[in-house]
Amino acid sequence: MMPRLVPRWPVWLFCWRAACIQGASDPWAGRPGPLVPRGSCSASSRTPEVTLTPERYPVRRLPFSVVSEDDLAALERVVPGRVITDPEELEPPNVDWLRTVRGSSKVLLRPRTTQEVAHILRYCHERNLAVNPQGGNTGMVGGSTPVFDEIILSTALMNQVLSFHDVSGVLVCQAGCVLEALSRYVEERGFIMPLDLGAKGSCHIGGNVATNAGGLRLLRYGSLRGTVLGLEVVLADGTVLNCLTSLRKDNTGYDLKQLFIGSEGTLGVITAVSILCPPKPSTVNVAFLGCPGFAEVLQTFRTCRAMLGEILSAFEFMDAECMKLVRLHLGLSCPVQESPFYVLIETAGSGPGHDAEKLGCFLEQVLDSGLVTDGTLGSDERRIKMLWALRERITEALSRDGYVYKYDLSLPLDRLYDLVGDLRARLGPSAKHVVGYGHLGDGNLHLNVTSEAFSASLLGALEPYVYEWTAGQRGSVSAEHGLGFKKKDVLGYSKPPEALQLMRQLKALLDPKGILNPYKMLPTHA
Amino acid sequence: MMPRLVPRWPVWLFCWRAACIQGASDPWAGRPGPLVPRGSCSASSRTPEVTLTPERYPVRRLPFSVVSEDDLAALERVVPGRVITDPEELEPPNVDWLRTVRGSSKVLLRPRTTQEVAHILRYCHERNLAVNPQGGNTGMVGGSTPVFDEIILSTALMNQVLSFHDVSGVLVCQAGCVLEALSRYVEERGFIMPLDLGAKGSCHIGGNVATNAGGLRLLRYGSLRGTVLGLEVVLADGTVLNCLTSLRKDNTGYDLKQLFIGSEGTLGVITAVSILCPPKPSTVNVAFLGCPGFAEVLQTFRTCRAMLGEILSAFEFMDAECMKLVRLHLGLSCPVQESPFYVLIETAGSGPGHDAEKLGCFLEQVLDSGLVTDGTLGSDERRIKMLWALRERITEALSRDGYVYKYDLSLPLDRLYDLVGDLRARLGPSAKHVVGYGHLGDGNLHLNVTSEAFSASLLGALEPYVYEWTAGQRGSVSAEHGLGFKKKDVLGYSKPPEALQLMRQLKALLDPKGILNPYKMLPTHA
Repeated sequence: MMPRLVPRWPVWLFCWRAACIQGASDPWAGRPGPLVPRGSCSASSRTPEVTLTPERYPVRRLPFSVVSEDDLAALERVVPGRVITDPEELEPPNVDWLRTVRGSSKVLLRPRTTQEVAHILRYCHERNLAVNPQGGNTGMVGGSTPVFDEIILSTALMNQVLSFHDVSGVLVCQAGCVLEALSRYVEERGFIMPLDLGAKGSCHIGGNVATNAGGLRLLRYGSLRGTVLGLEVVLADGTVLNCLTSLRKDNTGYDLKQLFIGSEGTLGVITAVSILCPPKPSTVNVAFLGCPGFAEVLQTFRTCRAMLGEILSAFEFMDAECMKLVRLHLGLSCPVQESPFYVLIETAGSGPGHDAEKLGCFLEQVLDSGLVTDGTLGSDERRIKMLWALRERITEALSRDGYVYKYDLSLPLDRLYDLVGDLRARLGPSAKHVVGYGHLGDGNLHLNVTSEAFSASLLGALEPYVYEWTAGQRGSVSAEHGLGFKKKDVLGYSKPPEALQLMRQLKALLDPKGILNPYKMLPTHA
Repeated sequence: MMPRLVPRWPVWLFCWRAACIQGASDPWAGRPGPLVPRGSCSASSRTPEVTLTPERYPVRRLPFSVVSEDDLAALERVVPGRVITDPEELEPPNVDWLRTVRGSSKVLLRPRTTQEVAHILRYCHERNLAVNPQGGNTGMVGGSTPVFDEIILSTALMNQVLSFHDVSGVLVCQAGCVLEALSRYVEERGFIMPLDLGAKGSCHIGGNVATNAGGLRLLRYGSLRGTVLGLEVVLADGTVLNCLTSLRKDNTGYDLKQLFIGSEGTLGVITAVSILCPPKPSTVNVAFLGCPGFAEVLQTFRTCRAMLGEILSAFEFMDAECMKLVRLHLGLSCPVQESPFYVLIETAGSGPGHDAEKLGCFLEQVLDSGLVTDGTLGSDERRIKMLWALRERITEALSRDGYVYKYDLSLPLDRLYDLVGDLRARLGPSAKHVVGYGHLGDGNLHLNVTSEAFSASLLGALEPYVYEWTAGQRGSVSAEHGLGFKKKDVLGYSKPPEALQLMRQLKALLDPKGILNPYKMLPTHA
């Protein structure tokens, strides 16, 4: 047996307990990207066919033009050699990562520059051609894949860092930079990205901004609405709106970039991002703890916030079902005694000794008081990554478990987990698994239900129940995933009619022909 | 002599050196509100008459209706007993705190509820009456006072806390709550407001949000764009837009509240605010240091950020001229050896011993290396307030020095102070004082020039020179004060024409008759 955390010990001196990996020499090594490569054999074999979106959902094609041979020739002049029409190449970008929606786009464009994007949009606007902007296509709500035959505008080749200032930490880059690549880039220069999420290996920073991604560092560094300093955006008619400043403070006029943060490509195409990176903390620790109940999880959070204060950088939780799934599908095993709930706490600070001391006092307190029954610590990079993988790879494990019904809710902390139990009772054996995990520190529950295959009756048991329950708590029916295609009609559970009306007016103002990411975000007209 | 900071000493053990107050028993006591009460004798005696805005600036009244007796009767029915028409009572709200602009409004309304605001705006919209929303009237750019005869809509009676959640720290309150009162309220409950500024004793939270106020805590807690969780806003036509959620994360649709943050009352009237308050740090320290040059100020900042990391909560600077003015006009004296520059560093953390140790190591380092020549520390509330007053009361000292030309610029750190020297050389004896101070940690310079009275020729020497210089550095011509009336025509120095165009479109969408805070923020049409 390896040592566990016990009260009154200087826990920061504890050794790491080697993770007991089942059936693999070391599946943790190199921290595999959390997302299965799109269109890979394994993904295809597990779900050979994804139903076309209009066959599953009640949606009608709007009267946009259809791409003609002349259009293709014209677009070829704008992005020579980067107009993709090969059906095989078009397969992955037509399907979302969760394999729940599928478009039938016949054209994908790969611009390299803002001017190319401007030319493309000017052309499409004139010709009334619908456009689906796409980054890493890692979205959870069908926002990044076409619904019908929209032209896919990929930011994949817009992957250049434009500048980095090593005193201020301001990074300016094109929208298609992969988050993980940016993380590496700034970490080599003594900074970190202000956001981090499971999809980091594939997602593009432009897509992160377009969906106002939350992720694992929001608790500490705040939302993109604060850390994004500037944006360059191409509007629907091809106008380039250059608000790519690098200033921490700028109160000259309306903060137009905010319109595009979180607008999921429906108001403009983000082509470049200026973002403030915090200095890299000199010391990071992760504690992975087992809790006997959700009340204890909450009390652990309160204790943690009081005792760790400014060094707390993440407070995540997962239930026992999540642990079961990451073991079952990914071969990861639980590094602590099995518990009804697990908590992952990260600290990041500038004084290794001080941080360890604070963490030690906190752990003593929660172990002493019975809030936590077992725990383990990581302070070197590899071990920290191992512990984080348990939390970060839940999405992947779920996607291997079958068809996933995903809910991403903001709820009052004290009611955060109640819905999970309610649903287990409500659904009974019709669901394969009902799991709850998420960013507890932000009041954000990821509620996921799996079944062998898509089931309309299970969906009927879930919706609108989940949304009504959430609205009853004055929660949000989309905390961080956005609305995309799949959640657009539930917006009314979290926003009043006056807000919907203003959203429509903004859409009409910025994209009067509605060519940008149609069928997304705005509820279907009555 | 009292002990000063010297290298190699455990500086956190140092005693406080009693501030040598000139000509006052204890002018620090009770920390006088930094703003002279509006309309007080002293203010009046110093500048008996403020020129009417249209007499000094080229501005023409737009064809709004003129308030009639019928209007007054109708408004009296909406806010009975709270329609102010007494010329004496109307004097202070017609003049800005800096006494640089003056309107001629004949009516001030004091609603208590959102519904009253909605009724008022519905009526004014129908009647084409212009409205000037006003909070504490502490703005620096003439944004909160009428230009002609706009109806003043005061939030002074909308001062109720609606709710406070003592686990999440979410405060929901009416727009007219005074910032200092809110600070006291949440501090009694173990939290602090995420913003703090010199005008705290008078400014309203609604006004803070409407101007996207920055202030002294932005470095640590970020901007209002991140900390404001929800807003209730009344639109120009009286529609109530209720986006008053208390959720940390909510990605359901466009983040409409962002439109109103920093829009200076031109798009809607903020009636209530939901804001996230950080937990009150258990320990706060302030160091007030003297630096031999601006290069040393910058190097002190870099060192500070590296060594104090997550406990750093403010990094402010002021030059020797500022110190001269607070001594001259307010009787405050310099607590350290006279220096060309002074730096105020605040730390806030959860471990008193740890923080003191970090601060001690930092101070040893900067004293050893000659970056800092002298310094003093405060760690109890009274002393901390004393040190902060030196920085916070500069605005007040300037206003007593004569007519003030105020510039609030975002600039790259390494060029932050260059403009001050340039201007001293450029203006010579035509300026009384040219001073530089501000939020160095945010790249925000407050550049102020004083003269005995308003001088058009001095203004001509300052503008557009200051704006062109700033634009040359890709800076912002308004970092945190906004544009209001006085800066609206310089927006183009920091924003491209496409942004101006979109701003105009948004204004036309939300306020088609242009009744909300006219003549402000948007540049005069060509």
